[in-house]
Amino acid sequence: MANNSNKIGVVGTGVIGNGWIARFLAKGYNVVAFDPAEGAEGNTRRLMERIWPTLEDMGVAQEASMDKLKFVNTIKETVEDAAYVQENVPERENLKKEVLQEIDEHLKPEGIIGSSTSGITATTLQEGLRNPERLIVAHPFNPVYILPLVEVVGGEKTKKTVIEQAKALFTEVDMKPLVIHQEIEGHVADRLMEALWREALHIVNDGVATTDEVDRAITYGAGLRWALMGPFMTFHMAGGDAGMRHMLDQFGPALKLPWTKLVAPELTEDLKERVIEGCESSGQGKTVAELEEKRNEFLVKQLELVSDYWPLFNKTE
Amino acid sequence: MANNSNKIGVVGTGVIGNGWIARFLAKGYNVVAFDPAEGAEGNTRRLMERIWPTLEDMGVAQEASMDKLKFVNTIKETVEDAAYVQENVPERENLKKEVLQEIDEHLKPEGIIGSSTSGITATTLQEGLRNPERLIVAHPFNPVYILPLVEVVGGEKTKKTVIEQAKALFTEVDMKPLVIHQEIEGHVADRLMEALWREALHIVNDGVATTDEVDRAITYGAGLRWALMGPFMTFHMAGGDAGMRHMLDQFGPALKLPWTKLVAPELTEDLKERVIEGCESSGQGKTVAELEEKRNEFLVKQLELVSDYWPLFNKTE
Repeated sequence: MANNSNKIGVVGTGVIGNGWIARFLAKGYNVVAFDPAEGAEGNTRRLMERIWPTLEDMGVAQEASMDKLKFVNTIKETVEDAAYVQENVPERENLKKEVLQEIDEHLKPEGIIGSSTSGITATTLQEGLRNPERLIVAHPFNPVYILPLVEVVGGEKTKKTVIEQAKALFTEVDMKPLVIHQEIEGHVADRLMEALWREALHIVNDGVATTDEVDRAITYGAGLRWALMGPFMTFHMAGGDAGMRHMLDQFGPALKLPWTKLVAPELTEDLKERVIEGCESSGQGKTVAELEEKRNEFLVKQLELVSDYWPLFNKTE
Repeated sequence: MANNSNKIGVVGTGVIGNGWIARFLAKGYNVVAFDPAEGAEGNTRRLMERIWPTLEDMGVAQEASMDKLKFVNTIKETVEDAAYVQENVPERENLKKEVLQEIDEHLKPEGIIGSSTSGITATTLQEGLRNPERLIVAHPFNPVYILPLVEVVGGEKTKKTVIEQAKALFTEVDMKPLVIHQEIEGHVADRLMEALWREALHIVNDGVATTDEVDRAITYGAGLRWALMGPFMTFHMAGGDAGMRHMLDQFGPALKLPWTKLVAPELTEDLKERVIEGCESSGQGKTVAELEEKRNEFLVKQLELVSDYWPLFNKTE
C-alpha cells in the first residue's frame, strides 16, 4: 500500500472477520486481530489450520504464514502502524461508531479504515470521526477467503484517493472490488440476494415448496449460470439473436404480472434503453450466438464440476 | 416411456422448443417438430449443427443423430403416435389453449402433453381438453439442452401417474425434474429469478449501478455459490456453527429493513422452524464445518473454472 506498511488490523473476528484474516494472511500480510469474545483467538486459529490447505490450493504468497497472525487485547494495539484496518463488529450502529472512533483515534492518518457493514452507510459511520475522509465500506462475501467480490462504497466525506488505494489493495489480494457510487441499504449485491431470499421465504411461508425444493430450483437451473452471467446478461441470452431488445419486448409485459411479491419498476423507454445498451456493451459487440458458444462451453464444464457435488453427501433424491 | 414409443413431438421451435429438440435428439429419440414461422426448420437445423459438438461433450446416446429430427407441416403429423409432446408456442393463453386442444385431439390417449409455459397454470390450460388428465406444465430453463432443471406441475385434473411418467422421461434425458405441488404464476424458479430481476431493474432505474455492475455483483459473489447451494443452504452456512438458527436470530430483523423493494413475510415462529428444520434436513446431519469443507472444495474448483471465463472476451475491467 501507499503507506508502505505490511500490517493489516482486523477488529471483530466472527465469520466475516476471520475470512478477511485468512485472505490477508494467504497473501503474505502481517495481521493483527482483536475480538473481546471469550476464546476468539482459539476459534480463529483453529479455522486457519482447517482452511490453510484450501488457501494453498488457491495459491498462497511465498512469504505467507499462519504465524503472521497476532492477537492483541486492545483496538489501539490492533491498529497502530497498520496500513489498513477492517472492522467487522456486530451490525449495530452505535457499537460500530464507537469502535470506528477508537480505530480512528489510534490509526496513523494515512491508514485506511474499511467497514464490513452490509446495512449502514459510510456517511453514517463517518459521523464523529476525526479523519472521516479515510473511511469506506468494504463489504465482502462469505467465504471471504474464496469469493472475490468486495463492494467498496465511500461516504460523503471519503476522499477519492482513499477509494483508489483501497481498490488497489483488494486487487492485490485477488479480490474484485466493485465501487458503488450511491449509498443505499444493502448496497447492490445484498439487495439482489435479499430480494431472492424474501421471495424464497414467501414461497416456503405460502406452502408452495420446501426449503430443499427452493434450493434445488436454483442449483439445477439459474444457479448454474450465475457464476458466469448476472441477471442482465442471462436475459440478454434468453432473447435469441436480438438479445435484450427482444427479451424486453417479449417479457416486458410479464413485469406487470404477479410473478413475485416484488413490484417492478415501470419499464420506461429510458430504462429499456439503459438495459439494452448495458447488455450490448457487456457483450462487447459479440452476437448472441457468439456469447452462446462461450456460455455453453462454460456450462458444460460447470455441469461436469457440480455433478460431483450433487447431492452434497450422497443424499437420495 | 410406458407407451413404448420413441417419438417425441415438439410444437413451437423458438429458443425453448429448440432446446427441447436438442435434448431429446441427444438422447437418441426421434423428434417430430412443427412451427409455422418462415424458415423455422432451417433455424433449428443450423442450431443443431452448431451445438452438436457441445451435446457430444456432454455425452450423446449411441443411437443419437440429427437425422432423427423431422419437420412436418401440421400439428396432427407432429403428435401422431408420439409418446410425449412438448408445447412451446408464445405465452398467450388463447393461442396456447388452441394449440393444446389440437394436440389433444390427435395424440393417442396414452400420450402425455407438456407445456413449457412459465406463467399460465396447468389447470387453466386443461380447460377444453378432451383428455385433460394427461396435461402437465413442464417448464425448463435456458439452455434446455444443458440445464437439468424442469419444473413439473399438474393441474386439478392431471392424473398422478402422468406426473410419475413424465418424471421418469425427464430423468431418462438427464434432467432434474422438480415437482411443484401448488399452481402459482411463475412456478418456483421463475418467481425467484423474477424477484432478482425486478430488484436489478430497480437498481438500474434508480441509478445506483449499471447493468454491468449489477451483473458483476452477482458473478463475483453469490453467483459462485448458487450452483451448489440455493438461498437456504447459503444462509445456513453464513450462520456459523449454529447454522440457520443463528442466522435467523442475527439477520431476521434485517427483514424489516428497506434492503430491497420486496416486502418480506412476517418471520413467525412457524416459518422460522420450517426454515431451520429444512436446512438441517438438507444438511443431512452434517455440521456446518463439514458442509463448509465440501463447499470450499467446490468453490476452489469453481473459481478455477470461472477464472478462465472472466471476462467473457478479455474485456478490460
